[in-house]
Amino acid sequence: MIDLNADLGEGFGRWRLGDDDALLELVTSANVACGFHAGDPSTMRRVCAAAVSRGVRVGAQVGYRDLAGFGRRDIEYDPHELADDVLFQIGALDAFARAAGDRVRYVKPHGALYNRIVHDAVQAEAVVRAVVTFASVYDVQVPVLGLPGSVFLELATTAGLSVIPEAFADRAYTPQGTLVSRSKPGAVLTTPEEVAGRAVEMAVSGTVRAIDGTLVNVSARSLCVHGDSPSAVAMAAAVRDGLRSVGVEVGAFA
Amino acid sequence: MIDLNADLGEGFGRWRLGDDDALLELVTSANVACGFHAGDPSTMRRVCAAAVSRGVRVGAQVGYRDLAGFGRRDIEYDPHELADDVLFQIGALDAFARAAGDRVRYVKPHGALYNRIVHDAVQAEAVVRAVVTFASVYDVQVPVLGLPGSVFLELATTAGLSVIPEAFADRAYTPQGTLVSRSKPGAVLTTPEEVAGRAVEMAVSGTVRAIDGTLVNVSARSLCVHGDSPSAVAMAAAVRDGLRSVGVEVGAFA
Amino acid sequence: MIDLNADLGEGFGRWRLGDDDALLELVTSANVACGFHAGDPSTMRRVCAAAVSRGVRVGAQVGYRDLAGFGRRDIEYDPHELADDVLFQIGALDAFARAAGDRVRYVKPHGALYNRIVHDAVQAEAVVRAVVTFASVYDVQVPVLGLPGSVFLELATTAGLSVIPEAFADRAYTPQGTLVSRSKPGAVLTTPEEVAGRAVEMAVSGTVRAIDGTLVNVSARSLCVHGDSPSAVAMAAAVRDGLRSVGVEVGAFA
Amino acid sequence: MIDLNADLGEGFGRWRLGDDDALLELVTSANVACGFHAGDPSTMRRVCAAAVSRGVRVGAQVGYRDLAGFGRRDIEYDPHELADDVLFQIGALDAFARAAGDRVRYVKPHGALYNRIVHDAVQAEAVVRAVVTFASVYDVQVPVLGLPGSVFLELATTAGLSVIPEAFADRAYTPQGTLVSRSKPGAVLTTPEEVAGRAVEMAVSGTVRAIDGTLVNVSARSLCVHGDSPSAVAMAAAVRDGLRSVGVEVGAFA
Repeated sequence: MIDLNADLGEGFGRWRLGDDDALLELVTSANVACGFHAGDPSTMRRVCAAAVSRGVRVGAQVGYRDLAGFGRRDIEYDPHELADDVLFQIGALDAFARAAGDRVRYVKPHGALYNRIVHDAVQAEAVVRAVVTFASVYDVQVPVLGLPGSVFLELATTAGLSVIPEAFADRAYTPQGTLVSRSKPGAVLTTPEEVAGRAVEMAVSGTVRAIDGTLVNVSARSLCVHGDSPSAVAMAAAVRDGLRSVGVEVGAFA
Repeated sequence: MIDLNADLGEGFGRWRLGDDDALLELVTSANVACGFHAGDPSTMRRVCAAAVSRGVRVGAQVGYRDLAGFGRRDIEYDPHELADDVLFQIGALDAFARAAGDRVRYVKPHGALYNRIVHDAVQAEAVVRAVVTFASVYDVQVPVLGLPGSVFLELATTAGLSVIPEAFADRAYTPQGTLVSRSKPGAVLTTPEEVAGRAVEMAVSGTVRAIDGTLVNVSARSLCVHGDSPSAVAMAAAVRDGLRSVGVEVGAFA
Repeated sequence: MIDLNADLGEGFGRWRLGDDDALLELVTSANVACGFHAGDPSTMRRVCAAAVSRGVRVGAQVGYRDLAGFGRRDIEYDPHELADDVLFQIGALDAFARAAGDRVRYVKPHGALYNRIVHDAVQAEAVVRAVVTFASVYDVQVPVLGLPGSVFLELATTAGLSVIPEAFADRAYTPQGTLVSRSKPGAVLTTPEEVAGRAVEMAVSGTVRAIDGTLVNVSARSLCVHGDSPSAVAMAAAVRDGLRSVGVEVGAFA
Repeated sequence: MIDLNADLGEGFGRWRLGDDDALLELVTSANVACGFHAGDPSTMRRVCAAAVSRGVRVGAQVGYRDLAGFGRRDIEYDPHELADDVLFQIGALDAFARAAGDRVRYVKPHGALYNRIVHDAVQAEAVVRAVVTFASVYDVQVPVLGLPGSVFLELATTAGLSVIPEAFADRAYTPQGTLVSRSKPGAVLTTPEEVAGRAVEMAVSGTVRAIDGTLVNVSARSLCVHGDSPSAVAMAAAVRDGLRSVGVEVGAFA
């Protein structure tokens, strides 16, 4: 069984991004933006309600405080402020998830924060601390979603959190199993069939063909479908169909 | 017994407002700003920790989304967006209050929102709905603090919330028992002794001398000490001493 | 000759709204958002460059400081702060308009501010003062675009500014010549042919059929094409074609 | 002759920082925050008016878009967005400087941006480009204030801008002539007499005693007095008096 996650609720006020409703029919976990890099309270309420009504799990898509940069600018944060910003976001989203009848089921860092804590132990520890605090004070289990091999997942494991490694069916991999930078040619795949094929390979064999042709391991419990690309819905549908056609069950991890 | 409440945590980032630590030694309820008109996650964490460690109750000081106007500009909000904004703020603060070992014990609207819902049933109902939702999904009691006679307290009562009417020892009252507008001369009292004397009268007799000399009823269970006036600490100390000297116990309502 | 104006550059960061490039091929005046309710510096640069390269005039679309509400929430502003906020916005946009080879040619208030100053003399005067200050210190002519009969245009005239009354071909009018509120049925027209027909009538006869069938005067020097409706481009094209077909020249007023 | 510059107008909305009026009596150049990391339109107007009325030069204190971090967080900006953000800020401030009867006379980057462009050529070039654009389109001279030896001043010189190297009388220097990091003990001096003594040495001999006792060259045309330290006014006064007592004239460079 494998989970499908996507970034949702990434609008702000008048602005929308991606087709939340269509994606909610396809994914099993919704990474909902919490207002610091995207998302606003009414969007959070709406997406939580729509997700819970479909049985899709709500996760906190936490990020840097950077609306203008959509959380994609790397920021040198004080780790205490980062932990506080993350706890704030999870706390706020939880109210809407509960109002919808469920609760925040997991946490997935976004954008520059996601990339930073692949290797930065100080910021990774700050995020882990916020999640541990949240889980502890509300007495709930809160797994974290992240890149296999990242310092973030390592520290989260040490801190006693469940970790869910994810893979990206629409991104090229290096022979070392990391993602090819978006700025490089061929880094992002856009053909639904190709993406679906890779998703199937990831789910069935736990491997993917790297950009140089070598076979690398990707032991993922969740596949990420990017929510804001123009073909996001088509790709998610292709991935879901591909998995079903080979008998891989799609289901939430949390 | 009477409660003393003050606005705390009203800084933002590099900016501070008022002497939070000194006031926390004097009040029994701390209205903590939640980031929409003032307050930031790290300030929220710090103030919650300082309040809880002193046995001071943490309340959510919810307001309009208006950092530049400090929540003091009247805004024509869509009521659904207002309810969502308020729920977001309470949810976020609750995470910090719990991290400090307690939880959000009450809600007090701030600034223009406070004034608006004295008479505006649509916005008042939106705030009430947010508090009811929060109380319900976390299964806690969440009283609201507000102006006696306000539509807000009336709707809150109807909705089943506890209501805590408050009085302002440092504000002039009209013969009708409402506050004299800040823009009028004599609207704000600044002599600690005078303010303390009025506080005692409010707590002991439930009355206050209006600006025209008539005696009006103010049946308050909490007295508000404004946190950001220059003499806030001196006034809070005088009020606390005055109450003690006549044997009125000061204690939190929640 | 008549001008066609549209709201452009109304995205923010990652978010886009409307098809700026397509509209720039059709309109003669671009109301560019200046960052307070929409717009960001890079969008401002890009839209100014695209407008100036096509001979489209750049106007400052000034609004309340309210990104979350897209400037559509009525706000009780201190008039001095409002004048300062407006001057700030014009000043910022002017740098980009000049970098593109032209300058801010006019000012058009946006959203709730636009509606407010139809009747609110205090806020209208604040906007007028900001425009007069800007025009004076940079020694340029800066007409203002607004609703015929509004207090804003009246005060602007008194202050010596040129005023450009505008009409809305896609909005229903009352028999008094004001706009039917968006919340009423039939307030917004969406059929390009119908909108084009009204535009022609407005330009040729200076009249429009009100919602009750009576004929009202609309002496407009500019027609507003809303930029963010789904059919904005189709309507602007139909209006432009309609005007051309009856021999009305389309050209900027500034 | 030497210039004294200080950071002013660094409040936001309800929040104030430093004593702008007292400092304006002492400095010759005012680095006015432009709204991205601090500052708001009304503060900008007020500080510009107060500065110009005293003959103090107004400079644009440009920074990263980061109100919550006061512009002190290092941010990985796209250089085009950075150039646009800087041009926006200068343009906005210029309107207020002109409304006060003068204009933006120079540009000084703030906080993390200041430190970043000491060595980062990409961001330095973006700032230089914005200043060159502004100077060109308004046909004015706009020197930049920065750290001697920085990539920023080097690229500014290459681009044809006047550069004003500055020194910090209240900061410890390394033997290499760079500033000792604020996080190190002894990095910031707080005794007005000592700071004044160093200011005099800097102005008269162009040297300063480094933290290890060696003598280093600091050929500065301006001395920076930090505006937001508690003793900022006392230090600025001591520096001004110290310079006067040895016959060094204090005057603006622009």
